[in-house]
Amino acid sequence: MPNKKRKPSIVVIGGGTGTFVVLMGLKEHDVELTSIVTMSDDGGSTGQLRDDYGVLPPGDVRRSLVALSESNELLRQLFEYRFENGGVKGHSFGNLVLTALQNITGDFDTGLKVASKVLRIRGTVLPVTLDDTRLIAELEDGSVIRGEQNIDIPKHNSKLHIKKIWLDPPAKANPLCIKAIKNADLIVLAPGDLYTSLVPNLLVKGISDAIKVSKAKKVYVANLMTKVGETHDFKLSDLLDSLKKYLGCTPQYILYNTEKPSASRLKKYAAEGSEIIENNVQEGNGIRVIATPLLRKKGLIRHSPKRLAEAILKCFD
Amino acid sequence: MPNKKRKPSIVVIGGGTGTFVVLMGLKEHDVELTSIVTMSDDGGSTGQLRDDYGVLPPGDVRRSLVALSESNELLRQLFEYRFENGGVKGHSFGNLVLTALQNITGDFDTGLKVASKVLRIRGTVLPVTLDDTRLIAELEDGSVIRGEQNIDIPKHNSKLHIKKIWLDPPAKANPLCIKAIKNADLIVLAPGDLYTSLVPNLLVKGISDAIKVSKAKKVYVANLMTKVGETHDFKLSDLLDSLKKYLGCTPQYILYNTEKPSASRLKKYAAEGSEIIENNVQEGNGIRVIATPLLRKKGLIRHSPKRLAEAILKCFD
Repeated sequence: MPNKKRKPSIVVIGGGTGTFVVLMGLKEHDVELTSIVTMSDDGGSTGQLRDDYGVLPPGDVRRSLVALSESNELLRQLFEYRFENGGVKGHSFGNLVLTALQNITGDFDTGLKVASKVLRIRGTVLPVTLDDTRLIAELEDGSVIRGEQNIDIPKHNSKLHIKKIWLDPPAKANPLCIKAIKNADLIVLAPGDLYTSLVPNLLVKGISDAIKVSKAKKVYVANLMTKVGETHDFKLSDLLDSLKKYLGCTPQYILYNTEKPSASRLKKYAAEGSEIIENNVQEGNGIRVIATPLLRKKGLIRHSPKRLAEAILKCFD
Repeated sequence: MPNKKRKPSIVVIGGGTGTFVVLMGLKEHDVELTSIVTMSDDGGSTGQLRDDYGVLPPGDVRRSLVALSESNELLRQLFEYRFENGGVKGHSFGNLVLTALQNITGDFDTGLKVASKVLRIRGTVLPVTLDDTRLIAELEDGSVIRGEQNIDIPKHNSKLHIKKIWLDPPAKANPLCIKAIKNADLIVLAPGDLYTSLVPNLLVKGISDAIKVSKAKKVYVANLMTKVGETHDFKLSDLLDSLKKYLGCTPQYILYNTEKPSASRLKKYAAEGSEIIENNVQEGNGIRVIATPLLRKKGLIRHSPKRLAEAILKCFD
């Protein structure tokens, strides 16, 4: 651990489920946590609220808030509750909270502070930007896909790779994120969708530069499975190359899961064209691949919060 | 004050704005407050949520929670926030909270406890019944109007008086209400719409009997203005007679406002056919009319929370 006088400070960069798992694991340890989350979601409940109310996207912020909440279980359930039918159908309750607070206070930040307090979160959740922006991708065939949802749930040939991805209009970093990255002892590049959860953070002006110059150790948690539309056919080296292109530097540690899921767990993924990411990265040049069992015991193929947190903290040694 | 060893216990019975004003005033004093609220609303956001999600009506409970909340102003604003457009249009945020909590926990009570805690309420809010019921009225011409909203905002000839009003199906009292009424030192029959806020509480089996046998002083806060569809052309004696019919006993104190609103404030009311309630009640037979200025200084013609609370507390003398 870097400094015995204060808790080590860990910044997690990402969004969605990947970040949720990292935070759930790390919050059990005595560390100072900051979650920096993407603000380019435009699908589902979040997309509808952006369209209807002109608010910034609440979805990824909401998930980090719930992960870090130390409130009673019911309040966390309430925040994740989704109305299943009727006029409010499809909306997540937490998204409605953040939307209403944003409308009342006139800005995203104040609302986020209130929600953080009500949920008694341990740590800090920071939107990577407070600018209203959308994600655009150019595919290898030259076609351009607009909007995070259209990239995440492709209507195009989902085996086409993404050649380039950017934000339109360009977005500048939330200054609190720059500060957190600068002061971090360790930065986790969280798992989750590469192009729709992790990279959109790096597209925000100032973020990758801040990571580059930060003295923090940089840990990349590699995805467990490929995903059509984003990382079809990818091996670990492809993930890493794509990440480096937007990160502008190389993470010192790559956490790679070695435990193979059972055939029955793989079935659903195979049907969607998702495959296990193969480790083909050679260590050296400052890169260390930590290959270790990180899989959770059952259910969807996801990281175990406990195993992942322990592996991340070992990078301090 | 009745007992020097404990705070005097005041139970307020009603719903909507009338109860809100009473609670706002009384919460500034050192008393134990319980708000018993009607559960027969079926209009607006509340009605939509009842139809869509089969929940008990959240609207009147929500208003009492906000009145008694000691949370910061923003959280109270959030609870009262109404989405103005888009998919969630017309819904009050607090109603959505109570609906989601009811769906998650499976009952209204648990959700209400969570909301009471989050809003840090001073006192207790109790739904008068936990049965799903609707308000039905028979008019003086024999026609039957179904649903609170249709009585409150009449589509029929609104000058027709209500001959009889009942709940269908019949509803039994929340046992906590019976207990609170029994232990009360003073019961306030709050202002607000006579037939759609106050009387629906008295229609719940067990409530009026409990009030009758309670040793508490009973204080009726008379309305300031008549209301078409409910109390058109009523004088104070008509209000009192209608109330007594459902209450089954006579309140010892009637609080009557003597301050006349300005012509400009009366204009909007005159256009709707609302007139100042005239005091024609003779004191005696155990009834005392406390005629005193109770009007708030500006805006809609409503009671001043401060003046009203002071007048209520004087009934202890």
